[in-house]
Amino acid sequence: MVSVAIIGATGYGGVELIRLLRSHPQVRLAFLSSETYAGRRLCDVYPHFAGMEVELRPLDPAAVAAECQLALMAVPSGTALEVVPKLLDAGLRVIDVSPDFRLNDPALYPTWYKFEHTHPGLLREAAFGIPEWYADAIAPARLVAAPGCYSTAAILALAPLVADKLIDATDIVADGKTGISGAGRTSLKLPYHFPEANEDVSAYSVGGHRHLPEMVQVLQDVGAGPARVAFTPHLVPMTRGILMTCYVRPKRDVEIEALRGAMVRCYANEPFVHVLPEGEWPHTKWTVGTNHCFIGIGMDRHSGRAVVVSAIDNLGRGQAGQMVQCLNLMLGVDQTTALMVPAAYP
Amino acid sequence: MVSVAIIGATGYGGVELIRLLRSHPQVRLAFLSSETYAGRRLCDVYPHFAGMEVELRPLDPAAVAAECQLALMAVPSGTALEVVPKLLDAGLRVIDVSPDFRLNDPALYPTWYKFEHTHPGLLREAAFGIPEWYADAIAPARLVAAPGCYSTAAILALAPLVADKLIDATDIVADGKTGISGAGRTSLKLPYHFPEANEDVSAYSVGGHRHLPEMVQVLQDVGAGPARVAFTPHLVPMTRGILMTCYVRPKRDVEIEALRGAMVRCYANEPFVHVLPEGEWPHTKWTVGTNHCFIGIGMDRHSGRAVVVSAIDNLGRGQAGQMVQCLNLMLGVDQTTALMVPAAYP
Amino acid sequence: MVSVAIIGATGYGGVELIRLLRSHPQVRLAFLSSETYAGRRLCDVYPHFAGMEVELRPLDPAAVAAECQLALMAVPSGTALEVVPKLLDAGLRVIDVSPDFRLNDPALYPTWYKFEHTHPGLLREAAFGIPEWYADAIAPARLVAAPGCYSTAAILALAPLVADKLIDATDIVADGKTGISGAGRTSLKLPYHFPEANEDVSAYSVGGHRHLPEMVQVLQDVGAGPARVAFTPHLVPMTRGILMTCYVRPKRDVEIEALRGAMVRCYANEPFVHVLPEGEWPHTKWTVGTNHCFIGIGMDRHSGRAVVVSAIDNLGRGQAGQMVQCLNLMLGVDQTTALMVPAAYP
Amino acid sequence: MVSVAIIGATGYGGVELIRLLRSHPQVRLAFLSSETYAGRRLCDVYPHFAGMEVELRPLDPAAVAAECQLALMAVPSGTALEVVPKLLDAGLRVIDVSPDFRLNDPALYPTWYKFEHTHPGLLREAAFGIPEWYADAIAPARLVAAPGCYSTAAILALAPLVADKLIDATDIVADGKTGISGAGRTSLKLPYHFPEANEDVSAYSVGGHRHLPEMVQVLQDVGAGPARVAFTPHLVPMTRGILMTCYVRPKRDVEIEALRGAMVRCYANEPFVHVLPEGEWPHTKWTVGTNHCFIGIGMDRHSGRAVVVSAIDNLGRGQAGQMVQCLNLMLGVDQTTALMVPAAYP
Repeated sequence: MVSVAIIGATGYGGVELIRLLRSHPQVRLAFLSSETYAGRRLCDVYPHFAGMEVELRPLDPAAVAAECQLALMAVPSGTALEVVPKLLDAGLRVIDVSPDFRLNDPALYPTWYKFEHTHPGLLREAAFGIPEWYADAIAPARLVAAPGCYSTAAILALAPLVADKLIDATDIVADGKTGISGAGRTSLKLPYHFPEANEDVSAYSVGGHRHLPEMVQVLQDVGAGPARVAFTPHLVPMTRGILMTCYVRPKRDVEIEALRGAMVRCYANEPFVHVLPEGEWPHTKWTVGTNHCFIGIGMDRHSGRAVVVSAIDNLGRGQAGQMVQCLNLMLGVDQTTALMVPAAYP
Repeated sequence: MVSVAIIGATGYGGVELIRLLRSHPQVRLAFLSSETYAGRRLCDVYPHFAGMEVELRPLDPAAVAAECQLALMAVPSGTALEVVPKLLDAGLRVIDVSPDFRLNDPALYPTWYKFEHTHPGLLREAAFGIPEWYADAIAPARLVAAPGCYSTAAILALAPLVADKLIDATDIVADGKTGISGAGRTSLKLPYHFPEANEDVSAYSVGGHRHLPEMVQVLQDVGAGPARVAFTPHLVPMTRGILMTCYVRPKRDVEIEALRGAMVRCYANEPFVHVLPEGEWPHTKWTVGTNHCFIGIGMDRHSGRAVVVSAIDNLGRGQAGQMVQCLNLMLGVDQTTALMVPAAYP
Repeated sequence: MVSVAIIGATGYGGVELIRLLRSHPQVRLAFLSSETYAGRRLCDVYPHFAGMEVELRPLDPAAVAAECQLALMAVPSGTALEVVPKLLDAGLRVIDVSPDFRLNDPALYPTWYKFEHTHPGLLREAAFGIPEWYADAIAPARLVAAPGCYSTAAILALAPLVADKLIDATDIVADGKTGISGAGRTSLKLPYHFPEANEDVSAYSVGGHRHLPEMVQVLQDVGAGPARVAFTPHLVPMTRGILMTCYVRPKRDVEIEALRGAMVRCYANEPFVHVLPEGEWPHTKWTVGTNHCFIGIGMDRHSGRAVVVSAIDNLGRGQAGQMVQCLNLMLGVDQTTALMVPAAYP
Repeated sequence: MVSVAIIGATGYGGVELIRLLRSHPQVRLAFLSSETYAGRRLCDVYPHFAGMEVELRPLDPAAVAAECQLALMAVPSGTALEVVPKLLDAGLRVIDVSPDFRLNDPALYPTWYKFEHTHPGLLREAAFGIPEWYADAIAPARLVAAPGCYSTAAILALAPLVADKLIDATDIVADGKTGISGAGRTSLKLPYHFPEANEDVSAYSVGGHRHLPEMVQVLQDVGAGPARVAFTPHLVPMTRGILMTCYVRPKRDVEIEALRGAMVRCYANEPFVHVLPEGEWPHTKWTVGTNHCFIGIGMDRHSGRAVVVSAIDNLGRGQAGQMVQCLNLMLGVDQTTALMVPAAYP
């Protein structure tokens, strides 16, 4: 049994981690931090965790270090940058879902996140937390930087084609649609107010969403060459789910069968990524509450582009599920531990 | 290990049973019946059951009897009446979620269901499948008639007060709100068409919903006296969940503390029913995908009525979850087996 | 042409007033106040008002008085109490949709609203703004206190039966369901955050919602006797609409035909209230964006209660529409002016 | 006054036409056809049309011709092909919203619609019903073929850039998101069943949606050259609205200012198309119930593509609103007649 801390336990990512880990056979939830609800019992804040009387505590890195061997960080950018190095120094292993350690190049932080990165060494050290692509780095890592929800959906859909050099990696369009829980729980802004978000679809962060550089970084890494993605995220009126519709241009003489074949082969032994038969396309509903990703792929004959569509749960595979998958790799247990549940349908 | 059949495996209740039972340590899913999809593999019909390649089969009572010891029936009224006796005759135990064996009095069937009941003996024999109230009858039963979703919500909220004779059982108002999945999957009627049901609330079956007689039957049974309920169901634009708001009249000199006390005591040792602290009221969101029921209770001083509100998932505690809870009792295992998961929130 | 001010023009009630009044043949929108957006043009704040370049201004009673003859107040309790007397003193007529002038009895304000009322004389003077019941008082009034959305739905459903003494006015249950826009636009609280409100139903303010005393006041007034209502409001996941399900007890020997007859007669000449044929029940969808109210009535034979269900749009008939209806009466024009549009369906 | 028939009056497009035209000063609704509800009064079928007692009639071209001068056809493909020629022969003018007369090239019908076109002459004659682009052809036309909802959104977003040859018309990606009312009212299929469509996003008709050839036809026409569009439609869980996100490649040395300038100039005098300021992006909510279209445009610097996003109401500008706009042109009245209402917000 490993003693694990969840830092930021009462946000949407945090409660999903609790839900997944409470029955994990190798994990003891030893420290649940919450600034907002410190001093209260989990079951009093969240009655649906009936019976879980564990007390929520303010974040105290020393106490975390004293009681835990591994920390799951589900706190905003900035807080992670400050806390993660302390936990690492104290000997913990860390999985961080903030963007603070995702980008290899420290020069990108002032541009995309408006701060100078103070720990460039950790950027070099951190493993990027997509197990299908970086399992070997994740397993022994001291620090795993779990990707954003959009990035996860885009990378799972695109990386096999880029890695096999079947498409033009510099001519990709990725149109993302997310449920509103992606905005988090504490961000009570007007766009997420029910009467505004309901019965509405809109694009946002056009031409500048922060998940872009990490998508590109991974595609460039797996493809060993330049990548360019036109990525536009959209809010759709549902709670959970991301659908990523990718439009790619196959290289000359590459047929759809080759694209599909590469996709199928790439994920053939992956328990969480499912390539659909020809003519079938994924639904986000299939993924709710799970770590699964479903991918459809087909040809748009008129335009000469191929279309790849991936579906995940932004809080599952897009956040907490993927963190647990990384945790399993780090613990050396089967990566599906505590994760092989299908969605509650419908 | 017990070999279990799910009859009607591809309806909403059926897939929820599959989801719950696939990891049940004492259950082997030996027979999944589906008329619509007979001959196809489960994972082809429902891609979210990735990897479950079991073949769906047409309902054949002889084959079920040959291969299974227990059948979970999730088929419509009429089909159940015809099939259940055959399965019982073949030696199986049966949990049926149709209304066909819920009512003790065969004379009620022509009135409420427009057919003459052909097996009145089974009506006498069947245990009513609410474990908190009929566990002793369920455990050894050959046939369990699981209640309707509304009935479950109403009975859990009202029975403690009626049993302790703290309220006037003949003066109850029960106002129910359900998600649309209560309509099932094959009933593609206009009221459930997305553009009609979305952004709408409406009452239906006013003064005559079929769950009424079973609610009344149980309340009369636990209270040993007459009961009358004004019950109105409503469709609300969500997928899962039932909220039942009950307005009751305490007997003379009965204070709210006595009502609350009875409720708390009644469910103190029940793992699935949670009475909330004073001033807190349940949300259906807390129950999605689970067998849990949350209950709030308080006084409406102005009118002199007490208000009891219960929340369940209509497909969980209101259907598949409760069937599994009954199954656990029948198998003699802990009744929480395969059921103690909290909701995926939000 | 009458010059009209909308005070609180950028809340949900305010923009609905603008939408309704922009094409009103007797109204000139002379002053639109907004504290949040003062100095900006309406079409810049709300692009859907394309072309409406009118500047939003901070609330200045003197300026309003100088430029307008009538003010529509759509601001919160407290602000109305302070501003309305100034506008009246300056010679304006006022329709106020806050609760600050709804209750006749000043002693109710400390109990229900936690403040001492400073203008009891205005409480006596104010007309209660439900035209079907108080048209004669509204037409000449200096001050109209428009009722709350729940109160409007309940009063329209219940008053005919109470006025004709056909039911026991002290034994009423009113179960209300509202869309989330009832919470307003600036109240960015967790319960209205999309991921929380979506896929959820819950009761709130059980036993103490502030619309109760005004409902009771009107029912006592029209019935000339005591009235008691057990009223529980609920949040349902939609943007607009209120459904009010009322359970009433007919007096001895009063049949459902008498109840229905009274309802039909009462509203026979009312352009906005529509009593449905027997066996039909209203949908909130029918009312979106309109001032219409649909009412269904029938008998619950089992319990001996009658059920009356009313549907309105909480921002239409429940707020802005009713204010315009009152305005029409005050202006002496047909009360349907600018209001006779059917809902956009679906 | 012109006597107008609505053929298919009880579908979603039909009732929207009724709503818009009932107060049109130059139109008398003389014939409302409905096969499903023939013989019933409109207000009995749709209670929200309270007071509209007009009888619905079966479609009888001779009767329509005898009583009307113009017909609005809102019936499915196939029916239109059969009925429209009869109405034209009888001397009526026709606006048809089916695809049966949209495509100039009869050879496309077997490919896209699986039938041989029997009236190629009418294909040549029909005006394409997007007023901003074909007003001169629409005004005198005998037959107007109104475009599909997706096509309308895509053409309004793209045509100015293609017409001015500012982008590569052969390298366009158009990602569409629609509310479920686009499926119509009578199509009670599983994907539109509330529990399936709610809390889900999915792509459909990938690489082969039937609106593609008409989009391409118009872009080729306005651009006088080849056009290719990779178009993927998606279902999102809302009732009304289409958002079209277009990714285009500016030609060499064409800056975003030139694109924006062309867009602004093109629609400067158009009452229904609104180009948003830099950095603002449209919401479908702004368009509900209206004929308005909002367009945002900006640069995606990373990829070198420009992004154009348009929002319309699929039943408003995407169907009934545009038909009324065409009708106004044909009648020689101001094209905004009966259409200049803003959305009911929120």
